[in-house]
Amino acid sequence: MSETLYIGIAGLGTVGGGVVKILQQHKDVIAARCGREMEILAVSARDKNRDRGVDLSAYEWMDDPLALAADARIDVVVEMIGGSEGLAKTLVENALKAGKSVVTANKALLAHQGYALAQLAEEHNVSLMYEAAVAGGIPVIKALREGLAANEIEALHGILNGTCNYILTAMRETGGDFGPILTEAQEKGYAEADPTFDVEGIDAAHKTCLLSALAFGVKPDFEALGVTGISRVTATDIAAAGELGYRIKLLGVTRRLEGGAIYQCVEPCLVPVNSPIGGVEDVFNAIEMTGDFVDRGLLVGRGAGEGPTASSVVADLIDIARGINVPVFGVPVEALKDARWAGDEDVSARFYMRLQVEDHPGVMADIAALLRDHEVSMESVVQHGGVGAGRASMVITTHAARQAKVKALVASLAGLSVVVDEPTIMRIETL
Amino acid sequence: MSETLYIGIAGLGTVGGGVVKILQQHKDVIAARCGREMEILAVSARDKNRDRGVDLSAYEWMDDPLALAADARIDVVVEMIGGSEGLAKTLVENALKAGKSVVTANKALLAHQGYALAQLAEEHNVSLMYEAAVAGGIPVIKALREGLAANEIEALHGILNGTCNYILTAMRETGGDFGPILTEAQEKGYAEADPTFDVEGIDAAHKTCLLSALAFGVKPDFEALGVTGISRVTATDIAAAGELGYRIKLLGVTRRLEGGAIYQCVEPCLVPVNSPIGGVEDVFNAIEMTGDFVDRGLLVGRGAGEGPTASSVVADLIDIARGINVPVFGVPVEALKDARWAGDEDVSARFYMRLQVEDHPGVMADIAALLRDHEVSMESVVQHGGVGAGRASMVITTHAARQAKVKALVASLAGLSVVVDEPTIMRIETL
Repeated sequence: MSETLYIGIAGLGTVGGGVVKILQQHKDVIAARCGREMEILAVSARDKNRDRGVDLSAYEWMDDPLALAADARIDVVVEMIGGSEGLAKTLVENALKAGKSVVTANKALLAHQGYALAQLAEEHNVSLMYEAAVAGGIPVIKALREGLAANEIEALHGILNGTCNYILTAMRETGGDFGPILTEAQEKGYAEADPTFDVEGIDAAHKTCLLSALAFGVKPDFEALGVTGISRVTATDIAAAGELGYRIKLLGVTRRLEGGAIYQCVEPCLVPVNSPIGGVEDVFNAIEMTGDFVDRGLLVGRGAGEGPTASSVVADLIDIARGINVPVFGVPVEALKDARWAGDEDVSARFYMRLQVEDHPGVMADIAALLRDHEVSMESVVQHGGVGAGRASMVITTHAARQAKVKALVASLAGLSVVVDEPTIMRIETL
Repeated sequence: MSETLYIGIAGLGTVGGGVVKILQQHKDVIAARCGREMEILAVSARDKNRDRGVDLSAYEWMDDPLALAADARIDVVVEMIGGSEGLAKTLVENALKAGKSVVTANKALLAHQGYALAQLAEEHNVSLMYEAAVAGGIPVIKALREGLAANEIEALHGILNGTCNYILTAMRETGGDFGPILTEAQEKGYAEADPTFDVEGIDAAHKTCLLSALAFGVKPDFEALGVTGISRVTATDIAAAGELGYRIKLLGVTRRLEGGAIYQCVEPCLVPVNSPIGGVEDVFNAIEMTGDFVDRGLLVGRGAGEGPTASSVVADLIDIARGINVPVFGVPVEALKDARWAGDEDVSARFYMRLQVEDHPGVMADIAALLRDHEVSMESVVQHGGVGAGRASMVITTHAARQAKVKALVASLAGLSVVVDEPTIMRIETL
C-alpha cells in the first residue's frame, strides 16, 4: 500500500459535511478501493463552533482556507466555498499552483474560469476534478470524459436543476402556478431563499456550459449560452402541453449541428411525455447523451443533496488516490478549440406558442396571415375561450422551422393589437 | 505526446470490426483524448478472406491469435473470440503473463475465470478491462467501479439482455406467445440461431455475476447464481401482469441483505409499469443501482450491437492509453471476499402466481387453505374462466413472504389434483 493521501477541506456546509461523513464511515472500503489510505488533515469554514453533526476533532482547524493551499502536507484541496470569484477562485488557483490537486462542486467557478484553471492544472500536472458540479450524484462527467470517450458526441439534453424540475412537476400535478409552488418548494427546502440562480436557469447554464466543453472539446464559454428560466412558465402552458402529449422541462441542450457549429442553451422545452427524459420527475436530474457509435444513453439520479453530491466529491478523491488524471475538459488545454456557436438562424425545430387574444371575428385570419408571411407552417391550433372578459387562449404548434423565423414571427404577433400580453414560445425537443 | 499504444485484435466479428472502425474514424480525437497515438499493429481471425467492410491492409495478419500475446511490440490484446474456455482463455492468460493489458467483451470468460485472471493481471501489473462485457454501450463497469466508488452498494437491478427485453416487449405489444415472437426476433437479427444463452438467462447471469463481484467486492461465483430464463413466460402472464400494473422483465438482481449475505439471481420478475426500469423496452438495457450515499441511479442504453459494444471496448483502450488502471473487481484480489450467498429462506418479497385450475366448486377453498397452511398471505386474486374445457386461470399476488415458503407453497399447489399444469411464480420487484 502506497502512502496516505492527505486532504484539506474548505467549506463545511451540507456537501462538505457529507464528504467528511463518507470519508469517516467508509474509511476502510475506500482504502481498499484506492490501495492507500485517505485522510482529512485539516478543515476550514466560516464558523468554527457550528454543530455540523460530524466529529471534526481529529482534524486541524484553519481559520483561513488559503492556509490549506499553502500547507505542504496536504495533497488535495476540496473547495466547497462556492462563487465564481473571490475566495473560492483564489483558493483553487493557489492550490493548483502549489502542485495540489483540487476537487470542487463549484459549477459557477468552472463555467467562468474553467479554461484558465485547466491551464493551471495542466502546467502543474495535477488534477482539477468536478464530478459533483454537474448533476450531483450522477457520474456524468466520468461517463462523458471516459465512458463515452470513443465517440464523437452529437447531442446532450439534460434536466440539470432539481429545484426547477420539482417546481415544474408540482405545477403539473397540482395545476398550481409558479409563485405559490415556488413558495412551497422553499418551505420544503427544495428551493433557496433567493431562488434566482435556480429558477432563472443560471445554475443549469453553468452545468450546460461545462457539458458543452466536455462533449465537443471546446473552451467553455458561458457568455455564448442563451438562458431562459422557468419563472414565466404558467399552469396554462403545462396543461396545454399535457393535452398535446408533452411535458415542460427546463433543458440544458448542447448539440453539434451539420457544418460543425454548436448550439447550446438552457430553456424550458416541451418533451414527449413518453420519452425517457419526459418521465424524469421531482428533484431528479437526467442527461441523455447521443454519441455516433454508442447511440443514445440516459443517466438518471439525484442532482443535489448531501449524500449524492458528496458521493461525487469522494469519487473524485478516489480517482486522485488511484492516480487517475484525465484532462479537465477531456483533451489537453492546447487542443481545446474555440467553438463556432450557432445562433437562432442555424437551428430548426418544431415550436409551441401560446397567445392571449381578443375573442372576436378575424383574429385567426390576422394570425394565420402572419404565420404565412414569416413562412412558418402551422401543425396544430387549439383555441379555448373564457380566459377572461372577451379573451381566448390560442395554442399553436408549428412544423419544423428556423428558430430565427419563429422568433421574428412571435415579435410580429406581439405587435398585433388583437394579441394581449407577451406570447409564450417554447421549442419542442423530440428526443 | 508519449509513445504510441500498439494493439492486437483477436476476433473480427461484429464487435471486432466495430473496434477497427472506431479506431480508424476517430484516430485524431482519440489521440487528443489520450495524449498519445493508438495504433492497431496486428489482427487475427478465423477467415482471412471474409469481407468485413473495413480496410485491414495496414495491419499484420496473424493466423494464430496466440501470436498476438507473444509479440513483444503489442501493448494491449483485444480478445473478441468468445467462450469461457479454450482459445479465448489461453489468449488472455498468455497476454497477461506477457505483461500486456487485455480488453475483452467476454462475459462468460470473466464470470467463470474472472478471479484467476484478475490475479494474473495484478501479478503482472497490467489492466484487464471488460466494460463491453456488461450492458454493451452503457458504461456501467466504470460507473460502479469508479463513479460510485464512494458508496457501499446496496442493490443492483438490471435489464441485461436485449434479446429477452425485445421478446418480452414484442409479446406484450402483440399478445403473441414466446415461440412465434422468438422466431420473429431471429428473423430480425435480434436473436441468435441458437438462442439458448440469451433466452435461458445464462448471458444475463454472466453479467450479473460480474456486477455482484464489483458491487460488493466479492469473488465472482457463477455457480452461486440461480437462473431462470423467459421461455416459460406466456402471453397470459404478460397480460395478467399488465392488468395489475406491472411489466415482466428478465432482471439480473444482486442485493446485500441485512446481516451481509448477498442474494443474486436472474429471473423474470414483475416491475411496476411506471418504475424507471419498467419503461425500458425493446432491445435497450438498463441498470438501477442503489448506493448508501448516492441513493438510486439509473443507466439506460443499447446493450448490444456493433457500435455500442465497440464504443465500450475502445473506451477501455482509452483508459489504458491514459494510464488508468483500477483493480479488476474494484479492490485488489487479496481484498475480494468469499461472499455469503443468500438463499430462498433469506429473501422476502411479494409474489405473482398463476395457476390453471379445474373450474368447479371448492377449488378456491383448497387453494386458500394451502396458502394459510404455508403462512403466505394473499394480496389479490383474479380468476378468469374460459381458458379451456372446464378450466380457469387464477392469478394470485401475495403480501411480502419468504421466498422459501412461497416455493414450498407452489410445490404443494402443483400437487393438488385441481391444479392443471405447473403453476407459474414470479417475484414482484417494487423498484
